[in-house]
Amino acid sequence: MHAQPGHFYAVGIGPGSPDLLTVRAVRIIESADIILTPQAKGTNRSLALNAIEPYRHGQEVMCVNYPMQRNGNHTRERWSSVAGKVLEKLQQGKSVAMITIGDPLIFATTSYLLYGLADGLPKERIQLVPGISAFQIGASRFHDPLTLQEDRLTLMSATDLAAVEDALDHCETLVLYKTAGVINELLGILKQRGLLGASKLVSCAEQGDGELLMDGLENWQPGELNYMTTMIIRIGKRRWRGESGAT
Amino acid sequence: MHAQPGHFYAVGIGPGSPDLLTVRAVRIIESADIILTPQAKGTNRSLALNAIEPYRHGQEVMCVNYPMQRNGNHTRERWSSVAGKVLEKLQQGKSVAMITIGDPLIFATTSYLLYGLADGLPKERIQLVPGISAFQIGASRFHDPLTLQEDRLTLMSATDLAAVEDALDHCETLVLYKTAGVINELLGILKQRGLLGASKLVSCAEQGDGELLMDGLENWQPGELNYMTTMIIRIGKRRWRGESGAT
Repeated sequence: MHAQPGHFYAVGIGPGSPDLLTVRAVRIIESADIILTPQAKGTNRSLALNAIEPYRHGQEVMCVNYPMQRNGNHTRERWSSVAGKVLEKLQQGKSVAMITIGDPLIFATTSYLLYGLADGLPKERIQLVPGISAFQIGASRFHDPLTLQEDRLTLMSATDLAAVEDALDHCETLVLYKTAGVINELLGILKQRGLLGASKLVSCAEQGDGELLMDGLENWQPGELNYMTTMIIRIGKRRWRGESGAT
Repeated sequence: MHAQPGHFYAVGIGPGSPDLLTVRAVRIIESADIILTPQAKGTNRSLALNAIEPYRHGQEVMCVNYPMQRNGNHTRERWSSVAGKVLEKLQQGKSVAMITIGDPLIFATTSYLLYGLADGLPKERIQLVPGISAFQIGASRFHDPLTLQEDRLTLMSATDLAAVEDALDHCETLVLYKTAGVINELLGILKQRGLLGASKLVSCAEQGDGELLMDGLENWQPGELNYMTTMIIRIGKRRWRGESGAT
């Protein structure tokens, strides 16, 4: 699959290592006229461009900044303006590939641009390429299964601690994003539930510097954590219904 | 990253299309001495081998069959025997890459073999490569976000309908696997909750023949479904806490 004129591609590029892009993502990036890379203020601005460095050979790069604000109106306005610029390029017959760390549909800003493009571009001119998400590369480093059989896996932000407690009661594996800001409260909840040993922390996995991998948090003292630190909690395991023996 | 002598690789190969493997998966498969491909009876036996066809050039292929049984003891015994064969090859200095459709840690049999290998192989000789999971490629075809902001995403088998109803109350996006066997009951639950229009069905996405993509199930009459048909239900959307406007 190669980038076609007047087409928009939302390409997941995985956690940050160039060899964790899919072959399809590589081909689209290599053949696109324009690479669009959105950057939130305060985040690692070079991560996405570093991940695609081996696949760059002079494609135009459009960097767009957006505010990381909890405000729907501001967010929509900003992305609507970006969508306008993208549509202009597409109407000129250019192909545009927007690169997103992780997967473009899992907690990604891609969705805002897709909303903005929906009115101006026929659906068949938009293609999405999934990417390896942070929880997948994190889990792969610990070797433990995320889910088996009838287990429930839930992914969410750790921001709302009441919702985190609720989730701990309703799944077997819980993946929490953005844990840095509430790490002490989280450790308290996990201690109370006897889950410190079943909890793992991961940040910057396969991103070069600053990788953190903590398997079991019983004796861990929280230090300065990366904003994007992810926690994986293996709460339990569901048996097959009707099965008598242990699994 | 290339396969090293005496090392075991659990490689996710994505949904079935050769260009949805990661670059790392391709390099390990191309450089491995032995490719291990487990096949459950009754499933698409050629899917995994077709997905890696462009990357085969004479590597030894070990096919192992395993029973798809809801019986922990039988499952363990079978995988323990496979683990023994793999350890023998590794001790001869061979590299072994086990290929798994999707991601090796998300509802995959890989975990059983990892358990079986854990006693006989140092952890540093085992490496996992994440892969694009079925729900990711499914969602990418519909262009709708799986999760934004503080949404909760839950993945589970549809087998236990009481657990499905419970999950519908505790997340914003629900991904259900193995829906074929309970499709009529599921449609009843969704109708009752007014969620038929928010539900999508996908099977065999990017696997060549027999692809099913249904966006909205209000007027859909269930026919014969593939065993692995996945449902994506967008139940709702959580607002940012403290935000007054709509998002």
